[in-house]
Amino acid sequence: MTKSALQIARAAYQPKVPKTLLGSVSIKEGGATASLSDQEELKALFPNTYGMPILEFVKSDTKETYAPINVGVILSGGQAPGGHNVIAGLFDGIKNMNKDGRLYGFILGPGGLVNHDYKELTADIIDEYRNTGGFDIIGSGRTKLESKEQFDKGLEILKKLNISALVVIGGDDSNTNACVLGEYYKSIDAGVQVIGCPKTIDGDLKNEMIETSFGFDTACKVYSEVIGNIQRDCNSARKYWHFIKLMGRSASHIALECALQVQPNVCIVSEEVEAKNQSLEDVVNYIADVVAQRSALGNDFGTVLIPEGLIEFIPAIKKLMEELNDYLAHHEEEFKRIKRSAQREHIISQLSPVNASIYKSLPEVVARQLTLDRDPHGNVQVSLIETEKLLAEMVGTRLDQLKAAGDYKGKFATQVHFFGYEGRCAAPSNYDADYCYSLGYTAAGLIGAGKTGYMSSVRNTTAAAEKWIAGGVPITMMMNMERRHGEMKPVIKKALVELQGAPFQTFASERASWAMETAYIYPGPIQYFGPTEVCDQPTKTLQLEQNK
Amino acid sequence: MTKSALQIARAAYQPKVPKTLLGSVSIKEGGATASLSDQEELKALFPNTYGMPILEFVKSDTKETYAPINVGVILSGGQAPGGHNVIAGLFDGIKNMNKDGRLYGFILGPGGLVNHDYKELTADIIDEYRNTGGFDIIGSGRTKLESKEQFDKGLEILKKLNISALVVIGGDDSNTNACVLGEYYKSIDAGVQVIGCPKTIDGDLKNEMIETSFGFDTACKVYSEVIGNIQRDCNSARKYWHFIKLMGRSASHIALECALQVQPNVCIVSEEVEAKNQSLEDVVNYIADVVAQRSALGNDFGTVLIPEGLIEFIPAIKKLMEELNDYLAHHEEEFKRIKRSAQREHIISQLSPVNASIYKSLPEVVARQLTLDRDPHGNVQVSLIETEKLLAEMVGTRLDQLKAAGDYKGKFATQVHFFGYEGRCAAPSNYDADYCYSLGYTAAGLIGAGKTGYMSSVRNTTAAAEKWIAGGVPITMMMNMERRHGEMKPVIKKALVELQGAPFQTFASERASWAMETAYIYPGPIQYFGPTEVCDQPTKTLQLEQNK
Repeated sequence: MTKSALQIARAAYQPKVPKTLLGSVSIKEGGATASLSDQEELKALFPNTYGMPILEFVKSDTKETYAPINVGVILSGGQAPGGHNVIAGLFDGIKNMNKDGRLYGFILGPGGLVNHDYKELTADIIDEYRNTGGFDIIGSGRTKLESKEQFDKGLEILKKLNISALVVIGGDDSNTNACVLGEYYKSIDAGVQVIGCPKTIDGDLKNEMIETSFGFDTACKVYSEVIGNIQRDCNSARKYWHFIKLMGRSASHIALECALQVQPNVCIVSEEVEAKNQSLEDVVNYIADVVAQRSALGNDFGTVLIPEGLIEFIPAIKKLMEELNDYLAHHEEEFKRIKRSAQREHIISQLSPVNASIYKSLPEVVARQLTLDRDPHGNVQVSLIETEKLLAEMVGTRLDQLKAAGDYKGKFATQVHFFGYEGRCAAPSNYDADYCYSLGYTAAGLIGAGKTGYMSSVRNTTAAAEKWIAGGVPITMMMNMERRHGEMKPVIKKALVELQGAPFQTFASERASWAMETAYIYPGPIQYFGPTEVCDQPTKTLQLEQNK
Repeated sequence: MTKSALQIARAAYQPKVPKTLLGSVSIKEGGATASLSDQEELKALFPNTYGMPILEFVKSDTKETYAPINVGVILSGGQAPGGHNVIAGLFDGIKNMNKDGRLYGFILGPGGLVNHDYKELTADIIDEYRNTGGFDIIGSGRTKLESKEQFDKGLEILKKLNISALVVIGGDDSNTNACVLGEYYKSIDAGVQVIGCPKTIDGDLKNEMIETSFGFDTACKVYSEVIGNIQRDCNSARKYWHFIKLMGRSASHIALECALQVQPNVCIVSEEVEAKNQSLEDVVNYIADVVAQRSALGNDFGTVLIPEGLIEFIPAIKKLMEELNDYLAHHEEEFKRIKRSAQREHIISQLSPVNASIYKSLPEVVARQLTLDRDPHGNVQVSLIETEKLLAEMVGTRLDQLKAAGDYKGKFATQVHFFGYEGRCAAPSNYDADYCYSLGYTAAGLIGAGKTGYMSSVRNTTAAAEKWIAGGVPITMMMNMERRHGEMKPVIKKALVELQGAPFQTFASERASWAMETAYIYPGPIQYFGPTEVCDQPTKTLQLEQNK
């Protein structure tokens, strides 16, 4: 593999780790824990792994000795910067306990476990991937580990390779499944521990004990870099409104973090739109008003950040989509026979009056997307809806009305952008490189201590890395019961943006001035070699949350 | 203005300059020069500025003294990283000659000169903008300085401010106009010198004496960063073909440079498509063949780089667009009265058979774009055509054919991207920060030496900055006569990608292996503080050109 100069220089970076992880460690146990809610149901579902104590690694005077341990590792779901460092930390941690321990990677995600597709990750391979982005060391995949058949099939290869612990690097669903798997292996005395690691750029896997999911820091910094560059262009050319959609499934953490980093003129936060029961029209009118007010000051340019999941958080649109999903599930063949140019009118005639009127108000392209692009479950594929174009077009229409009424005299020209794939595989920032390596090293420690059903936890990460607190959190502690596909399931509660939290409150208190003034900040690209205030800062979200 | 940590740290960077510019300098003059062609016409058009010698600054033992000089500066056209450093170098150069010299910036481009909209750029202001991206210090604009009325109006404010030299920072057209302006002021003894500086991310303003236009280095590095990240994602998820369009008006320098930096599976070079008289179908089939061959190796993923100007370089499409432009120029009203759903058929009925058949083969969205989005001159707005979607869709159609014929068994899922605004205003790389500062400082030197009609020239830039060669090139030397809007005009010859040049030849010799292997390179973000091999490398294009 040919490497860039930066890859070569960056390979030498030694991630910073909590001081307590170096040398001999022992474990301090907290009291018994309880799940977020639904305690009785969860206790019944996880008789062997419910209620375990929170663990914290502390310095020890006595050096433990360990037998060699063979460990398997799986990358699950979408890429996030730092995955390779979790694996490197895990590898170093295993080798530190006993140099004869081995690490096996399952290929292309959880499917690799079930299909017995694996490779041993030796020191040579690990060294090629230290501090790099991507999941390409073993690949990732979206197979869900949910059934007893999968668990048993996986156990065959684990036994064959003498693997006594499995580390699942994934988001909320993957960690839920890791816990189910750990519970199952414990219930049958399989002799395989399961440990999770909190991954997702979306930032929606976090709670009291998990400060942040890895990759969120790097991804937001890459998006903020390019948004900052666009803002500088916007402020130099002074002729475009840039509508910028940002990846991040449902939660708006990414959009909010980027807003805190770059101070755009507008940032929509889905959770607020839902809480205030806003309509699409409300969102459009809000943006149009900012455009008109800036125009009155002579500024016919600006930036609007839009979270990918917005459309689903607008209660009225959500209802429309539900009715559309339902209608098309039952009338797909009939609908397909209708001439393309007549489809829109047909849909309008079939919907309830309220939804018909909303559907009518949508631009043609989006209306079509809502009826055409369906996922295997028959649902609209929200990520394919070009919300950035939808809003740009509807704001334009609204401005035409304002102009006709004499309330707006400006020019409105737009550019649209969508950033997602640019950030998921960037080389990890120092923060993510350190955090991920520490998570992996901590996972090895939990394995050495014989634990299962835990998530690797590294806290206090706004302090210097040596002061970080490493340990384990029982996964059941983060769970509640939720309805999924019509069934009540144990799941790790997804963290949406808290409207009372410091990050949103800070944004809310500043946004009126950001809208009118041109208060852009230009963060620039992630730096790996410069002064610490440039290279080692955590996200604004985390800084604000921890200062509260 | 709130600044990011990087902006604050980067402000202290002291650009590296050629050793000959420091201390006392004198000028070494070459022999008389001639234009590229059309020597007699150009000599007649530029009686005062034609044929001047090439100038080179050399160390001198005697310290010159200068009277204070007031200078005006204009940013013309699209943004390019480093513009602020040209201005900072110019400022420092003027002050170095005599601390009482002043610098005035004309606001929002050449229009500021004509409209007498300006501000003095004092040390405080300059210091705020050192090493930053963007043109926001005074803004830029696209007004063309072409008429005597504009020149005379501009002279009024120049005289009022006692400005004896004007620096125009712009691309090929702006520098041509700068030369026309310089010639005019000289012909009327206005006492105002005009100096140009070579700017454009497109990289198409270059020749024997101008190695590269500033901004090309930084912009290509930003695009290569995000393409590299996408490639890492592509290689981790292994399920998408990414079609990535890159800014760069007509020439393919940006796409080619990015290809050399990231080693994608496919990169289309417009100049080659034209030279080989390829059809759109040829381009589509080439990409589809690569997709099919990779698929046979088990790799249903990849990356395709597409230069923005591609569509105009396909001879057959160019002819189609000419006929469409012509038809719509004469039948616009009639066409607009036709029902939208019938427009396509109508167009097909009006075109010549060859063009009708090509038009018929285009996906609906693109066919519509070709008839709808016209610029003020009645031409198709090529930059609005989503070539990346066009190719992704047509490759999909071609693969369906291959599948039906049993020649392809893979899955083809696509993601599309367009990068342009992300790179034009990035903070300049060390190369661009140094190069731009040197260009500005050199421009001040040319002013001090009483020159006009010159472009600031800094060469030998693949060597260490202290060895760079600074001087001036008579702008007429880069000119020829070309037909523009039906009239023969003096213009600086645009540099397209040379198919015999080392950059293209290197690409051409590697592309077959890049197509089949997954040879991606991940350049990562621009670094400002690290080791020199990471921070100070010029573009691959320049390195290859200078090693030839």
